[in-house]
This record gives sequence, C-alpha cells and structure tokens, in this order.
Amino acid sequence: MNKIRKSLLIVAHGSRKKVSNIEIHQLANNISMKLKSFPIVEACFLEIAEPSIPQGIEICVQKGASEVLIMPYFLAAGRHVIEDIPNIVDNERVKYPGIAITSLPYFGSSPVIVDILKSLAENNI
Amino acid sequence: MNKIRKSLLIVAHGSRKKVSNIEIHQLANNISMKLKSFPIVEACFLEIAEPSIPQGIEICVQKGASEVLIMPYFLAAGRHVIEDIPNIVDNERVKYPGIAITSLPYFGSSPVIVDILKSLAENNI
Repeated sequence: MNKIRKSLLIVAHGSRKKVSNIEIHQLANNISMKLKSFPIVEACFLEIAEPSIPQGIEICVQKGASEVLIMPYFLAAGRHVIEDIPNIVDNERVKYPGIAITSLPYFGSSPVIVDILKSLAENNI
Repeated sequence: MNKIRKSLLIVAHGSRKKVSNIEIHQLANNISMKLKSFPIVEACFLEIAEPSIPQGIEICVQKGASEVLIMPYFLAAGRHVIEDIPNIVDNERVKYPGIAITSLPYFGSSPVIVDILKSLAENNI
C-alpha cells in the first residue's frame, strides 16, 4: 500500500496585476510552513494567470501527491465557484484515476468570516 | 456637536448569480447583529449588481451615518482593490464634505487568513 501524500491546491481567480498573483503564491508558502500534514501546498488560478487549475493539479501530482485537496479561494458562491471550478476539476479528475481529487467548500462559506470582519471594523485595521 | 454614528459598508465584487449577491447582503446582516458599535451595516457592489458603491454610500448617509467605513471584501490586491474602489470612493468623498469616508485594508490582507485556511484544510470542512 502506497503512503498517503496530501496536497493542498489553493485556487484563486487570477489578476492582471502580477503582485496580486504573487500574493497568492506567498499565501500558499505561508500555509505550507504551518500545515505539516500537507507536504505539498500549491497555488493556481482560474483565469488570466498561470499555473492554471490543470497545471496546478499536475504540479501536485508530479511532486508525488496521492491526494489533491482543492481550496476555492473565493468569497462568494458566484459562477466561478458553482460552475467553472467544479467543471475544470471534474475534467482533470478523469486524467488521474489513482489520485483522490476532492474540493473543500469555497473560502467565503467559512463561518468565522463574520467574526473577522467584526474585528477588522472595530479595530480599524 | 453631533453624535458620531458609524456605518460599515461592505464592498463586494458583484456577481451575475443573484444568490451570490444575496449572500453578501446576508453577511452584512450577520455582521450587523454582532457589531453593536456600528448602527448601520450595508453591502454594495463594485460592478454587475446593485447597490453600486455610490449608492451604498448614499444609503449609509441617508440612514444618518456621520462616518462611512469601507470594507473592500476582496481576497487579493488586484486592480479592483488598488485602483477601482479607491477611485470611486475618492469621487464620492467630495460629495459628502461633512461625512468621514475612510477605508479599511482589503479583507485578504488580514493575517488570520492563513490560520483559517490551515484549519479548513486540516478539518476537511
């Protein structure tokens, strides 16, 4: 039996501003340093920037992932979250029959967001 | 001296999916219930959906706000955060000389986001 090797793939929208895309890669690096149960943490983009979602999955697999956990890094359940990302991930899944490719709920559905916004408003930072 | 009456204005991107925009209004309602120091909490949208940012500011002012605190509800510092929202807010500010219209950093710059993503990945919810 092969060892489970987890990867987390942050999927962001992608921006024409390079600094914005770099920010997402930095976020992936920051998570990687804290998330010891996931030896692989990568970032990719739905559109505009690269790596694309298919490329992001491929990077995880090439790094030896046996599982790819997708984190849709979006705040609201718009078309990108409901249709675009699931469609792309479904297409990729068939290419990797030995890899468990699953998706977390989109980031904005986290119940702690209300508390973060409250704290930001109160502390004005 | 007039009493300070704070308002928080959540600025989201706006989606063609109505349910996504409703989600943002629900978020504003949820924050409103917890954020007692802000008697007014509203949501508005940069594009696609209404109320627009100018309309959102107007709603806050009509409800008696003496201060409007903008929360750019975006995850990365792309063009919308760096240029579009500040430009619109700057244009509106001149219309309301008696109202303090200020902006928080965009949501994605909050340092707690790494911990939320870590928790989401570990607990797989």
